Amino acid sequence: MTVGVIGGGQLARMMVPAALELGVGIRVLAEAPGMSAAIAASAVGDYRDLETVLEFARSVDVVTFDHEHVPQHVLRALVAEGIAVHPGPDALQYAQDKLLMRRKLSELGLPVPDWAAVENPEQLQAFLAEHDGRAVAKTARGGYDGKGVRVIDGVAEVDDWFAALAEDGNGGALLVEELVDFRRELAQQVARRPSGEIVPWPVVQTVQRGGICAEVVAPAPGAAARVAEVSEDIAVRIAEGLGVTGVLAVELFETLDGRVLVNELAMRPHNSGHWTIDGSTTSQFEQHLRAVLDLPLGATGTLQPWAMMINVLGGPEGESMPDRYAGAMREHPTAKFHSYDKESRPGRKVGHVTVCGDDLDEVAYQARGAAAFFQD
Amino acid sequence: MTVGVIGGGQLARMMVPAALELGVGIRVLAEAPGMSAAIAASAVGDYRDLETVLEFARSVDVVTFDHEHVPQHVLRALVAEGIAVHPGPDALQYAQDKLLMRRKLSELGLPVPDWAAVENPEQLQAFLAEHDGRAVAKTARGGYDGKGVRVIDGVAEVDDWFAALAEDGNGGALLVEELVDFRRELAQQVARRPSGEIVPWPVVQTVQRGGICAEVVAPAPGAAARVAEVSEDIAVRIAEGLGVTGVLAVELFETLDGRVLVNELAMRPHNSGHWTIDGSTTSQFEQHLRAVLDLPLGATGTLQPWAMMINVLGGPEGESMPDRYAGAMREHPTAKFHSYDKESRPGRKVGHVTVCGDDLDEVAYQARGAAAFFQD
Repeated sequence: MTVGVIGGGQLARMMVPAALELGVGIRVLAEAPGMSAAIAASAVGDYRDLETVLEFARSVDVVTFDHEHVPQHVLRALVAEGIAVHPGPDALQYAQDKLLMRRKLSELGLPVPDWAAVENPEQLQAFLAEHDGRAVAKTARGGYDGKGVRVIDGVAEVDDWFAALAEDGNGGALLVEELVDFRRELAQQVARRPSGEIVPWPVVQTVQRGGICAEVVAPAPGAAARVAEVSEDIAVRIAEGLGVTGVLAVELFETLDGRVLVNELAMRPHNSGHWTIDGSTTSQFEQHLRAVLDLPLGATGTLQPWAMMINVLGGPEGESMPDRYAGAMREHPTAKFHSYDKESRPGRKVGHVTVCGDDLDEVAYQARGAAAFFQD
Repeated sequence: MTVGVIGGGQLARMMVPAALELGVGIRVLAEAPGMSAAIAASAVGDYRDLETVLEFARSVDVVTFDHEHVPQHVLRALVAEGIAVHPGPDALQYAQDKLLMRRKLSELGLPVPDWAAVENPEQLQAFLAEHDGRAVAKTARGGYDGKGVRVIDGVAEVDDWFAALAEDGNGGALLVEELVDFRRELAQQVARRPSGEIVPWPVVQTVQRGGICAEVVAPAPGAAARVAEVSEDIAVRIAEGLGVTGVLAVELFETLDGRVLVNELAMRPHNSGHWTIDGSTTSQFEQHLRAVLDLPLGATGTLQPWAMMINVLGGPEGESMPDRYAGAMREHPTAKFHSYDKESRPGRKVGHVTVCGDDLDEVAYQARGAAAFFQD
């Protein structure tokens, strides 16, 4: 029983402990030597190259992903060969193209911000005019961690994106969305296995800074039962409606007027679920392996009443997280330290810290204090 | 920061997830290819061969162990080269030789069963005569999992051991101990770092079958505060008195008349601490890495009120644990399954199952039910 992971980043890395505990095999197709998941890398190569991916896929029982960038034609060739791919290309297309995703969610009747596909500045101007002159513009493809997303109050701010579309010549469009007046951001994760079983984790609160996840509190503090129920229902409907297999993360807005709207999707373990390694009976990484292997899913309750996860962004200049463990561990014995073995670089996710406990104030104090050791 | 582990068994394997989460390097010197810890094996060779061990040791920052069998002359040669070795040879000798251990514990004034070193059948007969004709005989070296231990009621039952001693010609002796009338067996783990910090876990109850650990309940149910305190005090005094670095496990007898006596020691992660992977803020594997790297030790509280660990002994005939996950996981969603990727063989430890929860009856029901899936 061997899972093959395409992509050698920290999400692949964090699947390795889960695979070792379960005693299932794991192999990684890494982009380069020495990546975060290097310990499990059985191949190094380009995930856009069909032959490279096919050769890797033939050495494992099921293919899954560290990221959503494997081209559709490669995915479909694997499926045509009879290789198990989870999530499959039919589901992944919605994670790869935000316009497809918005269209599909609207069709499914799920609550989304007002949106439009705009092919030119005139269409964008019309959308802005209907939305108090402000909106969020997104490229349909290739965005992550805030890249490919801009809050705009004029069409000129995305001139370069329209120019790129024109140059591309494929008749593409930008996605434009209403700027949602939100109270806070939530994230709902579920896992779904090919045979249909779906298990959710509790909905969590996320805090983004500069478009990058900074902090996660699990469960979302003070979430009304209705908000938790709606969030779970939305994620289950997306998982079923889009045919997702493996872990699905749905980023949500909770609005000032009490609605829950879908912001983004990820069809893989997700930053909003890192708390589950230390805080839930089943971590998102173990659950993802179970789901893609079509094994029964594990319980997802919290081990302690509260968990807080804080990303280490950038990392200590010229040092690694472990270089600073002596001080951080002495001051914060309850903190769980996770380093992805990536070089420090401004804005880069190089690790995270999680604290679990009974009292949220104390948990937050410990988590923020521990994480601060790694920020210059 | 790289830890080198001598020995490629399941204890080395279970250090790998902890190393990956912390982002510290781990390399294993395995006895053979394809062992349980193969994913981290950077070398394969004989741990009794000085050149093999030296070459491996020079590639890491600190050397530690999956087992206690590395010869003293090899350990001392590493230390002479300036290599950090934890636990060091001065401590490890007491784990390698039960006669040395008994002598040292007696010197330290720690509570131990009555014992004697017996060089011949006459001395053994004298000990038996003083102890109602029954005793436990042990070889000083080489025993584990019940091997090298016999409950006897006559000297003839260890004729072969005396014959081996005579053949050996080194003037050795057997260890003979009173047969303790115990209420139950306990195990107390602590971690100690070279700079002196010591942190205990809660004392646990262990159930042995045929000399092999079968079940562990954490914390030990109904342990009087005094018993917990005495157990912790004993382990701390041993760690300090013997200069142990890393994780120390002390197997204890709780007697019918309320005493706590030291049975055996292990200077490494130990079967009685596997519950900590799922049940404690800091697992014994993470703590061992922190200790041997001389990093501050983590908190050791329980995440849920109770944890129960059950060994999978032997394993399903002709199958692996993962081959039976479909049924076991469906029936037991809260169970944590650990497979060591070792072939099934009668009596062999091939994995374990842990369940944590609020109610000990329910925890035991789930843990025993889940483990039963893997026993033919």
